[in-house]
Amino acid sequence: MNDPFDLVSPLDFRYIPASRQKAYAAILSENARVAFQARVEAALVHALAKQKVCSLAVAREVAQAAKGIRAREVYAEEKRIAHDVRALVNCLKRRVSKKSAAFIHFGATSYDIVDTANALRYQAAVREIVLPALLELETELLRLAKRHAGLSQIGRTHGQHAEPITFGFFLANYVERLGSRILLIQETALGLEGKFSGAVGAYNALTLSVPDPLRLERDIMNELGLQCSPVSSQVVPPESVEDLLHAMVSAFTVLANLADDFRNLQRTEIGEIAEAFGSRQVGSSTMPHKRNPLNFENVKSFYKQFMPRMVSVYLDGISEHQRDLTNSASQRFLPEMFVALSLSAERLTKVLRNLMVDEESMQAHLQESAHLIAAEPLYILLARHGHPDAHETARRLSMKARQDGCSVLEAAQAERSLYPFLKKFSSRETGLLKDPVKYTGLSRQKALQVCRRWTGELKKNGLL
Amino acid sequence: MNDPFDLVSPLDFRYIPASRQKAYAAILSENARVAFQARVEAALVHALAKQKVCSLAVAREVAQAAKGIRAREVYAEEKRIAHDVRALVNCLKRRVSKKSAAFIHFGATSYDIVDTANALRYQAAVREIVLPALLELETELLRLAKRHAGLSQIGRTHGQHAEPITFGFFLANYVERLGSRILLIQETALGLEGKFSGAVGAYNALTLSVPDPLRLERDIMNELGLQCSPVSSQVVPPESVEDLLHAMVSAFTVLANLADDFRNLQRTEIGEIAEAFGSRQVGSSTMPHKRNPLNFENVKSFYKQFMPRMVSVYLDGISEHQRDLTNSASQRFLPEMFVALSLSAERLTKVLRNLMVDEESMQAHLQESAHLIAAEPLYILLARHGHPDAHETARRLSMKARQDGCSVLEAAQAERSLYPFLKKFSSRETGLLKDPVKYTGLSRQKALQVCRRWTGELKKNGLL
Amino acid sequence: MNDPFDLVSPLDFRYIPASRQKAYAAILSENARVAFQARVEAALVHALAKQKVCSLAVAREVAQAAKGIRAREVYAEEKRIAHDVRALVNCLKRRVSKKSAAFIHFGATSYDIVDTANALRYQAAVREIVLPALLELETELLRLAKRHAGLSQIGRTHGQHAEPITFGFFLANYVERLGSRILLIQETALGLEGKFSGAVGAYNALTLSVPDPLRLERDIMNELGLQCSPVSSQVVPPESVEDLLHAMVSAFTVLANLADDFRNLQRTEIGEIAEAFGSRQVGSSTMPHKRNPLNFENVKSFYKQFMPRMVSVYLDGISEHQRDLTNSASQRFLPEMFVALSLSAERLTKVLRNLMVDEESMQAHLQESAHLIAAEPLYILLARHGHPDAHETARRLSMKARQDGCSVLEAAQAERSLYPFLKKFSSRETGLLKDPVKYTGLSRQKALQVCRRWTGELKKNGLL
Amino acid sequence: MNDPFDLVSPLDFRYIPASRQKAYAAILSENARVAFQARVEAALVHALAKQKVCSLAVAREVAQAAKGIRAREVYAEEKRIAHDVRALVNCLKRRVSKKSAAFIHFGATSYDIVDTANALRYQAAVREIVLPALLELETELLRLAKRHAGLSQIGRTHGQHAEPITFGFFLANYVERLGSRILLIQETALGLEGKFSGAVGAYNALTLSVPDPLRLERDIMNELGLQCSPVSSQVVPPESVEDLLHAMVSAFTVLANLADDFRNLQRTEIGEIAEAFGSRQVGSSTMPHKRNPLNFENVKSFYKQFMPRMVSVYLDGISEHQRDLTNSASQRFLPEMFVALSLSAERLTKVLRNLMVDEESMQAHLQESAHLIAAEPLYILLARHGHPDAHETARRLSMKARQDGCSVLEAAQAERSLYPFLKKFSSRETGLLKDPVKYTGLSRQKALQVCRRWTGELKKNGLL
Repeated sequence: MNDPFDLVSPLDFRYIPASRQKAYAAILSENARVAFQARVEAALVHALAKQKVCSLAVAREVAQAAKGIRAREVYAEEKRIAHDVRALVNCLKRRVSKKSAAFIHFGATSYDIVDTANALRYQAAVREIVLPALLELETELLRLAKRHAGLSQIGRTHGQHAEPITFGFFLANYVERLGSRILLIQETALGLEGKFSGAVGAYNALTLSVPDPLRLERDIMNELGLQCSPVSSQVVPPESVEDLLHAMVSAFTVLANLADDFRNLQRTEIGEIAEAFGSRQVGSSTMPHKRNPLNFENVKSFYKQFMPRMVSVYLDGISEHQRDLTNSASQRFLPEMFVALSLSAERLTKVLRNLMVDEESMQAHLQESAHLIAAEPLYILLARHGHPDAHETARRLSMKARQDGCSVLEAAQAERSLYPFLKKFSSRETGLLKDPVKYTGLSRQKALQVCRRWTGELKKNGLL
Repeated sequence: MNDPFDLVSPLDFRYIPASRQKAYAAILSENARVAFQARVEAALVHALAKQKVCSLAVAREVAQAAKGIRAREVYAEEKRIAHDVRALVNCLKRRVSKKSAAFIHFGATSYDIVDTANALRYQAAVREIVLPALLELETELLRLAKRHAGLSQIGRTHGQHAEPITFGFFLANYVERLGSRILLIQETALGLEGKFSGAVGAYNALTLSVPDPLRLERDIMNELGLQCSPVSSQVVPPESVEDLLHAMVSAFTVLANLADDFRNLQRTEIGEIAEAFGSRQVGSSTMPHKRNPLNFENVKSFYKQFMPRMVSVYLDGISEHQRDLTNSASQRFLPEMFVALSLSAERLTKVLRNLMVDEESMQAHLQESAHLIAAEPLYILLARHGHPDAHETARRLSMKARQDGCSVLEAAQAERSLYPFLKKFSSRETGLLKDPVKYTGLSRQKALQVCRRWTGELKKNGLL
Repeated sequence: MNDPFDLVSPLDFRYIPASRQKAYAAILSENARVAFQARVEAALVHALAKQKVCSLAVAREVAQAAKGIRAREVYAEEKRIAHDVRALVNCLKRRVSKKSAAFIHFGATSYDIVDTANALRYQAAVREIVLPALLELETELLRLAKRHAGLSQIGRTHGQHAEPITFGFFLANYVERLGSRILLIQETALGLEGKFSGAVGAYNALTLSVPDPLRLERDIMNELGLQCSPVSSQVVPPESVEDLLHAMVSAFTVLANLADDFRNLQRTEIGEIAEAFGSRQVGSSTMPHKRNPLNFENVKSFYKQFMPRMVSVYLDGISEHQRDLTNSASQRFLPEMFVALSLSAERLTKVLRNLMVDEESMQAHLQESAHLIAAEPLYILLARHGHPDAHETARRLSMKARQDGCSVLEAAQAERSLYPFLKKFSSRETGLLKDPVKYTGLSRQKALQVCRRWTGELKKNGLL
Repeated sequence: MNDPFDLVSPLDFRYIPASRQKAYAAILSENARVAFQARVEAALVHALAKQKVCSLAVAREVAQAAKGIRAREVYAEEKRIAHDVRALVNCLKRRVSKKSAAFIHFGATSYDIVDTANALRYQAAVREIVLPALLELETELLRLAKRHAGLSQIGRTHGQHAEPITFGFFLANYVERLGSRILLIQETALGLEGKFSGAVGAYNALTLSVPDPLRLERDIMNELGLQCSPVSSQVVPPESVEDLLHAMVSAFTVLANLADDFRNLQRTEIGEIAEAFGSRQVGSSTMPHKRNPLNFENVKSFYKQFMPRMVSVYLDGISEHQRDLTNSASQRFLPEMFVALSLSAERLTKVLRNLMVDEESMQAHLQESAHLIAAEPLYILLARHGHPDAHETARRLSMKARQDGCSVLEAAQAERSLYPFLKKFSSRETGLLKDPVKYTGLSRQKALQVCRRWTGELKKNGLL
């Protein structure tokens, strides 16, 4: 395979930028898989040494040997014996003295290594790749939300103009939602479990090979910084991985929602924001004038490809008896999920950094609906000032205003029966009905409050 | 609709037992939906009274009126005005004095009511229905795991006999997995959020109608015992519901795995357990001798129907701008998820209570594989006593044993080159190779430890 | 269950309109399930009579008895014996003479009845409910597409104005897509299979009970108008149901796409179409001015709930050995899919019948982008007239036009180097660049052609 | 990327065997994507020449240039201009004379090229890779089904022994199911559509650039052997791809079912079949005696990873207005589906070729249940000879036989009241009750009939 474009899977040759390949490969490639497994094998021998099954010198020798191991060598051996973990073991044994070789994988079953190494690897991927990418995005959202905390914008429900908010308030909702997912990803990653309980989870072989199997398992997990499965079969109970993957898919949903919102705000008719566009960039192969929200579309597209894979994760939660192997191949695709989420976050960060915000367009939309959005405050004020049927009255007036092309306030003022109520309105209240663009409630205050809270929260969790 | 069998949806007429209909309807039916919404409307007026917008007498009148409200009345009104929450509001208004009517729904948007009521309802469903059902199952698993902690059974991986465990150890894995899901469901239900921030989430109307909108929202949530969304749009951020639903689907996965395992253990050729069978019960309409694992199959079947709906939950996590309504109808199916999970747990509990455990069959299977399962301990012991190629030797001997119909130990003893190692084995070690049925590792100890831990854990969380 | 609002599942009490309940119940309710099963039982006895196993009088007696059977009776018997099909058999037996009773279900296994009755029922549901609903929608789309075949509208890609089309052309795409799904649903429904091959599919019992088992199976399927599974296990191979469900989910996807498009066209900023709105209808409980695309949102929401259930259908495609029962409960939810798709089509038809089309708004959008959409024809014309770098030139000019606020043609005319090319343009060509609103290509022609083709196609298939 | 083990996606470095890489890359890699697109670009110029827009010499020059194009070159250009198809166009232009360059991509929009090339490529993948792999598997199933048409085996429902079949009959069910999927894949692949209708589907640019745009589109599709979309937007209507993918996922479901069945038949307690096992192959890294159904497990695991992606396919069926780009990245993962299905079929073929069938084990299981499986024929025979309550009697007797450890016939013979019926049984009938192992119905006959039918059917379709 000399040409990367002879590959089938598009993540590697198309979506991972050259500048990120090394970082991703260090944790999520097959070489990384092997390296993390070797590290677990080394941790086993170290734990054996702690129980005097072998010497610390043996443990050091194995730890040293574990460092250089590469997938190519293991695959060659696997081709010979048709078992991947035994192949790794054989490769490790060749790299140490005969004496030390005897202690490699001693008392272990393959999935002691595989599941523990995966937990370790997923944790590293979260720590080194996923969280940094999401935090950069969160930081960008914080910056934008604070900057635009007071920039008024029409709020939209059902795609219809509703009541005014501020652009920063809109963004603060994403600060909140993404923030909560960041914490959940961090928490569930820390909950990932390893195991060292042998072929059926009952420490059968280990009771013959070490003085204290439970301590051995604890020692290994402590050394690796993993939770220890309180009980296991041949494999770690699948729930800790499910929880992490749910957290990631849920975070991805937030990203997809954000991408959709920005795609919509970039519509020609709305045009309140736009992706920046390179001067040499081609928008369409046939329509030279096009400026498309390519990056937002890409994030949504990744979401459509990756979200349904949560079904695979649940399906892998079922394994017969002390395990069947039907989760083996499917799990090998899990690293793609870490890549897809991270790439999408990185892409969004980049776009948001250069986001074009068209304040004029925002104000224009507000003005267009100003005559109608007064219907809600009118209803509230009529009600507060004692009108017995305020909502129905405001509804009727807004239909009338729409028909007559006047403002809702004008329609109200044209009705004699409303005089007694309208005259009770304070001048600030009447002012709001005249210029409902100011009717942004607590948007600015709330936006800033959310930003403060998350800046603090992330710092508290060592994330900023 | 006079005949329930004219219904299309099977949960109501087929799967919810008559004895449970009332309990389920109290929280998960349409009448319950309306009742919880009325309760939120009442909480709003109470909070208004706290800010002196109205008197406490008004709040009491509304609270009283809210109690009797039924869906039939609301639906009749909705038919007239084509808006469900406004219909509820109109119905409530009719039940109180004109003066009090003015404060009903005052400053609220529909989804202040709908989302808050749903959070409240889901929390009630978890507390009253889901957790009790899962805890009964957990209790039954605890009882069985303790009872059979020492009952040896062959462990199976890939559907193949592997190494011995105990039946209680097998069950303890489910005690652990289900226990962890129970805690997660409890935790995520407590994390459910309500909101009272108006049509676009910025408290627009509330700034006109009450002195302190943020306090109003807090007061309402405190009264209802819900988390308060730190920030919201027209709707509560979807993540807290996603988290609960994930916890439930993940718990369902544990139930489905358990059902599969028991289905397999009930296979004719295995026959280690069986569902009890009524003396009048018909197994098959044509094969009068059949005894089928109907209940385990039913649970798996429910799982296949309901797990994929997690995809709908994620799809509902995306709502445009300050919200679109494309999550409205789909969310109305969420109560089915609570029902499906609870019914499945209740069914499993019932079956496990009468589970037939065939200890003889378990011992027979152990004996059948006794000559082979010694391969692992032989490999471990050879290795521990210094054999340089223990795994390969044991593998070769087990192939030989399989061919020659002898035990692995006998095959080993037939090889002169192994004498130096075999003679180093302690008598307990040699005994284990002769009677590998005892080779259950720490099964019993671990089973009891897990049971102790979970009994304590559940008590600590107020669940037992 | 006296109050339908004590139900959990929302389809029955909320979404099926009262006017449609009877029609839906006749095929998709539990009573219908029982009735179709009774019909299959009757067909069996008739086929037995053809082989002289019993007399035609017996067959007539059973056919008569089968007509009146109701679910209530069967459920009471099932409660006693815990087997649904045997319960039906017992109920039928009670309704006939002892002599005739002996031939009921004779030689059959439950799933000969269940699967055959389901195939029959799904076929009826397609014929009586699904296809009529989709055809009404298709008819409405045809009407609108023809009516608006020449109404120009800006085409949009990536949410951006692209090149002009006509509204009828836009609709013709849905005529085509929905039409193709209608034919596929019809075809796959006709492909539904029944079976009569006994408990393991090998006609074991039938070889003892009838002279020619294969003819018996053929006779039954012929009488019922079903395909006969060429070979079966206890159950019909799942593929024919999968194919139908795929066709339905794919049709649902077309409906969801249409709903999304209309939701977007109804956005405040676009406003090219709108759902009609009742004069008493409430748009929002707090914003009296709102006009929301409720029906389009509802269809999308149903789609989000039902599309993922295709995963359940595939999961049910796996059944161990000669069958396991893990598809039993899950299949009982299939009728909901027929309801959901039909309701969505009926809803769309109703909305489209009263659709408000705002031609002025359409023309306004075209005019707004007129100066830019000329970029494509300019590129094409430059290229056709020999410009060596036409695309890049047009791209540069459109960026310039955007900056300078002039039309693309004006930008071109300002460049001396383009004179030689521009002067080669025919007057029609230059005219198009000046008024690119006319640049609708073959929109009108294609729209009408598609409408003609589908009118013919549907007639040919007996559907119009 | 010098080391393939630095990749993240596992298909390329792990699952595609070295011997198949070239064949897969030729159609499903990125180089293939580019090559197929270049071929479509060449077909366009050829069609232009047919309408005298350019000369045939130009078309030949472009066709020649299109042949050598590689992804590496296109990616370099894309990096510069940020548009993939325009990058391809630029690369092609560089390879031809200036005169010819002007006609490349003339009047086309990117997705005229992309969607048409994908249809072509998927069709090639079906023809060259998917169908051959499935046909090899079908051929192997046919061979086995014929060979074992008469080998009796216990039929199993609910995992319980039911009635006897033959192993060939069991396999014939898969011959049928896989056969039907092969035909559906072939049919849906032939239904794949291309389009050449420009940026919004209305042939806008083409009406300026060619005399007859509709003929141009037809000419291109005819040359490429594709269906022509009767109407399109910027993209081909998604349904033809959905149909093919459904056919493939449905076929995959058949493979997964087969894998599950064989996994179960290989269980230690059943042992009726086994995967062959290399003499050097390691079964477990710790249990040297293990023989695992690795390949069947792998196929099921692939299924769990790939089936849920059908949800992505449906999600991609929705594209706003004349298209959005949110299906772009997700579609780039579609080639993986072709690979996954083919690899799984190839793997199953290989295993089935060396399948170990343990006839003794099959006969032993039949004998074990012989005393019980007579319950069904006893019921049938009692009924046929006039017993009024045959099913209930047989059910009772089988419970008695189970308790007393006697055969059902013996239990029957012990009841005086049954004498009148039993003595009416023919000697063949009584013989069957004594030796119910022969009670295989039409298993053998049906197995052979199915094999004959499919051999003919596949030949008729040019597939064998």
